[in-house]
Amino acid sequence: MVHYPTGKKNTFQEKNKISAGRRGQALEKDLNQSNQYYLDTNKAVIHKKPTPIQIVKVDYQSRSTAKITEAYFRIPSTTDYNGIYKGRYLDFEAKETRSRTLFPFKAIHPHQLIHLKQVKSHGGIAFVIIRFVLLQETYLVEAGIVIEAYENKQHSLPLSVVRDKGYLLKSGYICPVDYLKAVDQLLLKGE
Amino acid sequence: MVHYPTGKKNTFQEKNKISAGRRGQALEKDLNQSNQYYLDTNKAVIHKKPTPIQIVKVDYQSRSTAKITEAYFRIPSTTDYNGIYKGRYLDFEAKETRSRTLFPFKAIHPHQLIHLKQVKSHGGIAFVIIRFVLLQETYLVEAGIVIEAYENKQHSLPLSVVRDKGYLLKSGYICPVDYLKAVDQLLLKGE
Repeated sequence: MVHYPTGKKNTFQEKNKISAGRRGQALEKDLNQSNQYYLDTNKAVIHKKPTPIQIVKVDYQSRSTAKITEAYFRIPSTTDYNGIYKGRYLDFEAKETRSRTLFPFKAIHPHQLIHLKQVKSHGGIAFVIIRFVLLQETYLVEAGIVIEAYENKQHSLPLSVVRDKGYLLKSGYICPVDYLKAVDQLLLKGE
Repeated sequence: MVHYPTGKKNTFQEKNKISAGRRGQALEKDLNQSNQYYLDTNKAVIHKKPTPIQIVKVDYQSRSTAKITEAYFRIPSTTDYNGIYKGRYLDFEAKETRSRTLFPFKAIHPHQLIHLKQVKSHGGIAFVIIRFVLLQETYLVEAGIVIEAYENKQHSLPLSVVRDKGYLLKSGYICPVDYLKAVDQLLLKGE
């Protein structure tokens, strides 16, 4: 963080960093590697969706490939990850937070919660993966728990609830976030 | 098509048009509208994935949103559409062709066929939607038929095979491509 001579924080840069989706890149990298491991070992077919971009201008002048010269990030209408595991449709969103005490719902778009609710109603497996960066703890929380709290006008999920109702995910070298083990537990519980 | 004084066709522009993904936009629009109809009527949750883009430069100078100033189209590693229907994972690619006699496999990336094969092996419903633009006919073809022909070193699927093994999709005003009716037939057949 840059401090100005006046002592004022450079909140503009900080804000832009977040809006451009810089947050959560470590978790994203870990999940992509885990998904590749699941694919290589024929355990599941789960992919991250591309970032939604609004393309405004494309330059076809150049001899090589078409070059996009003006585009903007769009708010996603669904979650970032979906696929198939044990014949079941699986869908989730992944978020990092720097909070030590709670998972703030402002980190997740309302569209995404509606989408997870629709997935559940059609018999899919829906959840949220939450990483508490400063605690170095990553949890899988079944979507229903997050949706219920959100619909009860809560603004966040306390860490205590995440620890109590979620599944702590182990980290390994080949599979950095082995979340399918937690999905197995969800399936056993009939969620 | 621009003809040069030499009589040579401007194949460069033609090639760029195709690579920039201009083809298939009418079918894409029809499918998006059909998926919205399925979502609104609570029949299925199926979405098109965003176009994969390689972002090179982002301009954070402006006060408003971050502006992407250099980016390129990437080759997709999976198909364009997936979701859940009747509790089942469903995955497909959609392509238009201007051919009147066959569906050329060069229209589909090998990655996408591998992906559809993986989906099938995990118990998902996998298919390709093919529109013959000049014939005004749109078909759903189960992925196994396309994969088998591709693995047998065929370069295309003859229209006769598409007509024989595929399902002709009806067009309606509210649901322009009612492909889930064909999926019901696939499910009845145990595909």
